[in-house]
Amino acid sequence: MKTLLAWALWFSGFIHALAADSAPAPGNIGGAEYPRIGSDRSVTFRFRAPEAKKVQLGGGTGLVKDSLDFTRGENGVWTLTTPPAVPGFHYYWFVVDGVHVNDPASYSYFGWGRECSGIDVPEPGVDFYSIKDVPHGAVRVHWYESKITSKWRRAHVYTPPDYDKGRPRFPVLYLQHGAGENERGWVEQGRANFILDNLIAAKKAKPMILVVDTGYASFAGATVGTNRSAATAAFEEVMTKELIPSIDVNFRTKTSRENRAMAGLSMGSGQTLNITLRHLDKFAWIGAMSGAPRQGFDVTTAYDGVFRDAAAFNKKVKLLWFSAGTAEERFHASTVAVHESLNKAGIKNAFYSSPGTDHEWQTWRRSLYEFAARLFRE
Amino acid sequence: MKTLLAWALWFSGFIHALAADSAPAPGNIGGAEYPRIGSDRSVTFRFRAPEAKKVQLGGGTGLVKDSLDFTRGENGVWTLTTPPAVPGFHYYWFVVDGVHVNDPASYSYFGWGRECSGIDVPEPGVDFYSIKDVPHGAVRVHWYESKITSKWRRAHVYTPPDYDKGRPRFPVLYLQHGAGENERGWVEQGRANFILDNLIAAKKAKPMILVVDTGYASFAGATVGTNRSAATAAFEEVMTKELIPSIDVNFRTKTSRENRAMAGLSMGSGQTLNITLRHLDKFAWIGAMSGAPRQGFDVTTAYDGVFRDAAAFNKKVKLLWFSAGTAEERFHASTVAVHESLNKAGIKNAFYSSPGTDHEWQTWRRSLYEFAARLFRE
Repeated sequence: MKTLLAWALWFSGFIHALAADSAPAPGNIGGAEYPRIGSDRSVTFRFRAPEAKKVQLGGGTGLVKDSLDFTRGENGVWTLTTPPAVPGFHYYWFVVDGVHVNDPASYSYFGWGRECSGIDVPEPGVDFYSIKDVPHGAVRVHWYESKITSKWRRAHVYTPPDYDKGRPRFPVLYLQHGAGENERGWVEQGRANFILDNLIAAKKAKPMILVVDTGYASFAGATVGTNRSAATAAFEEVMTKELIPSIDVNFRTKTSRENRAMAGLSMGSGQTLNITLRHLDKFAWIGAMSGAPRQGFDVTTAYDGVFRDAAAFNKKVKLLWFSAGTAEERFHASTVAVHESLNKAGIKNAFYSSPGTDHEWQTWRRSLYEFAARLFRE
Repeated sequence: MKTLLAWALWFSGFIHALAADSAPAPGNIGGAEYPRIGSDRSVTFRFRAPEAKKVQLGGGTGLVKDSLDFTRGENGVWTLTTPPAVPGFHYYWFVVDGVHVNDPASYSYFGWGRECSGIDVPEPGVDFYSIKDVPHGAVRVHWYESKITSKWRRAHVYTPPDYDKGRPRFPVLYLQHGAGENERGWVEQGRANFILDNLIAAKKAKPMILVVDTGYASFAGATVGTNRSAATAAFEEVMTKELIPSIDVNFRTKTSRENRAMAGLSMGSGQTLNITLRHLDKFAWIGAMSGAPRQGFDVTTAYDGVFRDAAAFNKKVKLLWFSAGTAEERFHASTVAVHESLNKAGIKNAFYSSPGTDHEWQTWRRSLYEFAARLFRE
């Protein structure tokens, strides 16, 4: 009797967990049942590895700080349920006896310098990055030849919904990914195209062209290896001498500095500040997401002293904008410090704080939504 | 002395193999040294898995028919050199103690119903699918709402180089992938955009729009599971009632049947024949790559008897075109059989045989090159 009751309780709990309380993750391949997301935003993974001694969910991501062990079940099927996850996109992978393995039930996304599995945990009531029945812009693959790197480079270019109607010209936002990511990030993980579609449809942002390139660019013939500084050394030159001219020739852009913005996240934030603040003849709108200078920021010497003459800076720059998530504590603290130090020096700038989000795409989706809404107005 | 000589020979062989005789595969991530392709087109893989008992290169692909064992070296690094490979794109993956693992040094491509690693083995002297310094069309991501499947669907649309210059209208080729692949295949694996760029630049093909959608489409609410027939059941209706209208509204297309072609590979070949031969009011150009009907093809009854009146068929259809690779023997034989049986029945049709290539993308790249050159000519 006791056994039967225990079984009944177990069984009802099982059915509840499977049917009522969780659903397949929205991006699963071909209607796969797992991974599943619970109503409490816990994520349940399943993976078949009959010969494995140990299966873990890799840690150090925004999904789980520390690696978590799977439990072995029948037929070599391993399962794991995470604690409730922060909403948004998370990279993940399994570690099977020490080897990184992607989940066959999920698509791959480029992050951490490799293809990773990805899962998007919905945020209740939030749909600013969802595809909706509004006019859609197009994301175009744009190849251009780079003599500086001696490579063909691939950018993604979003053109707004009205681009093909008539011959209007549009302002341009250049938007950069973070370390270990590439030009796919802002569209595939960030959903930048849907964010702009929705903003433009609601008349909350001006129609604009969005250009997403990879921030990795090494000089032709350079030895790069694993040296990030060499791997990105040519980007400033590629961007100013090759990418921008190629976009201005191939798309109907407005080419004045008042019609050109640049923003980026993490490594891309550093690149944005380095490039824009040294090329104010080319940019008037600047967005730094989760990547303000962290140490030794001196407002009088930073970026070749661009902040020394506050009045001149404020006249020239239409928007200097920072953001960080409250859960990425070090980034948040250093961004607040830079923001306040600029305030003290009389440099007009803005700061957006993303509640509860980490060094992850939910911070950057929100950041793009906030930043894009302010662009190209005057 | 003998030992020294042996060592010198081994060492010179090693240096030769590493430096002179092989090079990193063209698609390696971030300049990774492995996989390497030898001058004999052998491929050398390296993979680190210190705890693994057995590492294999998965078989059953065009790269290797049977699984091949890696050899364990120092520090848990396993290596394997394949026999000389057929040129072209090959899916691959490692099997580590029974678990499918993608190569961290390669990008992922969607095939076999999951993300797989991919490697492109160059074909000497062949560059019709390479990116070149010619005018490039754009590949655009086109989202459309499908009421039939109750899903948003994503197609890729290639617009030719002159699309944005003036307001010309273009004919359209709809091009389908094979089983286990999706709408990314023809651009990422097939390089269809570069093939068309090069053909158009050489004036060997008419400028055209190319539409690549996924052939998977199930009716809203249908139970699909692993049933391919249910997973593709709605595609004919989606294509004729939703995709074509959406393309004709959003792109500057020529909309008459004489300006619309459809082709596909393998499963997509079957879909092409089923759809075009039953909708000759919509299509005048038909391409069937590696997927002619295999058994029980009766020219008098096939496709609702469309071949019964040869004169009427020949007048109506501008091109009925088949292809297969000589190394995919069963596909090749059945395609030749259909081709000959149609010839006997007086149905005008063409057959292209791809020398030495298997049921793989090199067959289909060549097929597209041959087929596209014949399209939209009178």
